[in-house]
Amino acid sequence: MLEHIDLTKSMKKKEFSELMETLAPQLALLQRQAKAANIPVTIIFEGFDFAGKGKLINRLISCFDPRGFEVCTTKTETEEEKMHPFLWRFWKRLPARGRIAVFDNSWYRSVLSSAFDHDTPKEKIERHYREINAFEKQLSDDGMVIIKFFLVISEKEQKTRMKTLLASEDTQWRVSDAMKKRVKGHEKYAQLAEKMFGGTSTSYAPWYTIEATDHPYAAAKIISTVTTVMANALAAKEAAPKPVINPQIDTATYRTAVLSSIDLDKSLTDEEYKEKKKELQKKLSILHNKIYNQRIPVVLVFEGWDAGGKGGAIKRLTEALDPRGYVVNPVASPNATERAYHYLWRFWTKFPKDGHIAIFDRSWYGRVMVERLEGFCSQDEWQRAYQEMNEMEAGLVGHGTVVLKFWMHIDKDEQERRFKERQETPDKQWKITDEDWRNREKWDSYEVAVDEMLLKTSTPNAPWIIVEANDKHYARIKVLETVVAALEKAVK
Amino acid sequence: MLEHIDLTKSMKKKEFSELMETLAPQLALLQRQAKAANIPVTIIFEGFDFAGKGKLINRLISCFDPRGFEVCTTKTETEEEKMHPFLWRFWKRLPARGRIAVFDNSWYRSVLSSAFDHDTPKEKIERHYREINAFEKQLSDDGMVIIKFFLVISEKEQKTRMKTLLASEDTQWRVSDAMKKRVKGHEKYAQLAEKMFGGTSTSYAPWYTIEATDHPYAAAKIISTVTTVMANALAAKEAAPKPVINPQIDTATYRTAVLSSIDLDKSLTDEEYKEKKKELQKKLSILHNKIYNQRIPVVLVFEGWDAGGKGGAIKRLTEALDPRGYVVNPVASPNATERAYHYLWRFWTKFPKDGHIAIFDRSWYGRVMVERLEGFCSQDEWQRAYQEMNEMEAGLVGHGTVVLKFWMHIDKDEQERRFKERQETPDKQWKITDEDWRNREKWDSYEVAVDEMLLKTSTPNAPWIIVEANDKHYARIKVLETVVAALEKAVK
Repeated sequence: MLEHIDLTKSMKKKEFSELMETLAPQLALLQRQAKAANIPVTIIFEGFDFAGKGKLINRLISCFDPRGFEVCTTKTETEEEKMHPFLWRFWKRLPARGRIAVFDNSWYRSVLSSAFDHDTPKEKIERHYREINAFEKQLSDDGMVIIKFFLVISEKEQKTRMKTLLASEDTQWRVSDAMKKRVKGHEKYAQLAEKMFGGTSTSYAPWYTIEATDHPYAAAKIISTVTTVMANALAAKEAAPKPVINPQIDTATYRTAVLSSIDLDKSLTDEEYKEKKKELQKKLSILHNKIYNQRIPVVLVFEGWDAGGKGGAIKRLTEALDPRGYVVNPVASPNATERAYHYLWRFWTKFPKDGHIAIFDRSWYGRVMVERLEGFCSQDEWQRAYQEMNEMEAGLVGHGTVVLKFWMHIDKDEQERRFKERQETPDKQWKITDEDWRNREKWDSYEVAVDEMLLKTSTPNAPWIIVEANDKHYARIKVLETVVAALEKAVK
Repeated sequence: MLEHIDLTKSMKKKEFSELMETLAPQLALLQRQAKAANIPVTIIFEGFDFAGKGKLINRLISCFDPRGFEVCTTKTETEEEKMHPFLWRFWKRLPARGRIAVFDNSWYRSVLSSAFDHDTPKEKIERHYREINAFEKQLSDDGMVIIKFFLVISEKEQKTRMKTLLASEDTQWRVSDAMKKRVKGHEKYAQLAEKMFGGTSTSYAPWYTIEATDHPYAAAKIISTVTTVMANALAAKEAAPKPVINPQIDTATYRTAVLSSIDLDKSLTDEEYKEKKKELQKKLSILHNKIYNQRIPVVLVFEGWDAGGKGGAIKRLTEALDPRGYVVNPVASPNATERAYHYLWRFWTKFPKDGHIAIFDRSWYGRVMVERLEGFCSQDEWQRAYQEMNEMEAGLVGHGTVVLKFWMHIDKDEQERRFKERQETPDKQWKITDEDWRNREKWDSYEVAVDEMLLKTSTPNAPWIIVEANDKHYARIKVLETVVAALEKAVK
């Protein structure tokens, strides 16, 4: 892409001013329309050092209403950020629906820079590009407009600009040693960028190279590109067919296989339970120290039938843990803020840092259960969710996270018994609502959905563990045992 | 406080279990009631190292529903945190209304530790305690329950516990060099803690010392204290008189003085404007480099009549700035998330890091203008807001921030002219709404409120600058000049 670029392109100041008289109000209008249509927009600026990103971003954002955008400056990762999957810090800064985020260096920069500085192994770079493609695909499928600019200047121009900055006391601090190194290695950087284009130019998030020798020309190309892409996205959204929402499942013809074959008679005596619990909690407590010390992050997901014993199992885990090293994230329906983002956003932001345990009491899997069956999302949305969740978990595992997913399984009779017990115990009455009874009526549909989920999202590195939970003792011990075994495997 | 403590206190395990059978469900119920009553609860754990904070916190939170609390672990400040006023990182982690936050080490720890390690000068410690008292008072006035525990063990016990941890490979990493130093300096630490009690034990946020030699005794005292304090807070809230909301101002008897004496005839020719603007923007651009380089944070507040020219003035500033070093924060009415916190929370979280500029297009001063006049807050609330805002700005200034507040002043006729112009220009129509016309009808009341605000909150280090804005040129240049002069004074 870079070799065919004509870096002599330029535009007269007057021509630029005239163009802006049309484009600036048009872009301001598009921003208001995108807000009304709930479309989030992400604009990325990458490129050679000293290509003028700062000035060009300032030119672009001067067209926008400041109430609707953020400029996100990406620096070297902080310690906190290093202790998370590499996309974590970008998930946290994504624009909400209807808003615009301008990234001054983005997820690409960390890959490019580290490839430049440390000759990252090819496999790692390719893994990161795969993760980026999945990330951008997920966002794009969710309606986000992604515009990626790469600013290009020649090696000669780059050197001249660097010298000018170095010549003045007020600006020389702007030139870091890393930049000097990249200028010196202009050709190497260009080659790495070429590979990046090859790996990440997609139909849903293409790269636009910008000839940045001449400021007015570059600004005009950037602003007109943003205008065109946003106008197209608005037109496409208007023309899009109505999403299909069809939460009905024909439970008579759809034969389930996984859950119906589970043996729920397994149990433990009081004595066995107490003894095993004590022993396993002791082990877990020591393992918690070790995983903290070895900086291994852990994600534990709990799903299951209402009254399946998620809370009790979680409690038996946390009793053995240091509160400074774990968080229980109870997941209910998303609030207004959360709904303004991709459905995975609220989980991404809660992923543990290295050495910590994040326990999810319900999780992203709500997408393919309650959201599917209540029609809270379209058929397209829940169908593509299996892959999205697999991709997300693969990203966690790639980062070194231990991921375990528990399905707390009871049968219908046991659920009824527990519901009634809750109603009859004053301290527990608040735990049981009409909604629980309503969900119960959809048991068969849920069983189909859960079977499909278990089959499509149990992966070797992020497996589902079906916990036979009619007997609470048995269930709690199985959870403890599974966690202990997985952590023992993970620690050195 | 510490010398009269009986560290031999203990409780039998059986007695503790029996007590918990009553207390645990009681506390769980109080949590649900506090949630229903929208009361936020902050529980702080401080104390000697190895006093058992982790285990005691785990015991306390085991009584709570995990959907309603967070454990906030305070570590050494990150680079990002160091570049903000010291309370910034705690503002960001405060519990929302109805939620509970348990701080494992809190704002006190940073003061204590730095006093211990670096013999912080007395004045600085006292300033921090003053800021903490103001902070806790603000939160308490806003309805937050604050419970502060200090865990005490003897020097001998502390040494024994440290030795036990050091004896095992799995736990020795828990003992840092800083801890060893603090154990060695037990007496010094105790004396500093005494001073802390003296400086920060207040009626609204008292300290509770906990004898922590015996785990059941300490756990029982903590849990029963939380139970009592929460029960009292709920009773107090129920018994509290209805807040007085009285947005009417008798504009006939209340004589204004500040705004009415402003000369609005000042103006600049086109030529003068262009010339001065060019010169000042050039200076500002260089100063932006300098303040970044010297790590000086800047807060610029813009208030003023609708159509007073805030946006235009801000634009003339930002044109000269690097987008990576400034943010414009447009302030509208708070959203649902923001309403769940103290009204200053959403501003605290947006304060700039050192070297950056935060521009507020409208600000916290809405509290004593629109919120006062529309009855969105009670009389008590807006009356104490003047002091709270002064305290907040004093905290910023104490940290080294340049704070400037602009009131963009136009007269009623000029406003009408601008409103009509907006209505008649297609590109500007979206800027003018019925609400603007409605606010205009309250001009006289606003004038009284603004006068009061200017008089009560213009402080030497965070002054109000009244900008004569009937002539846009004059106004924009005055803003640029003021900012340039203030930055020139601030840089070395």
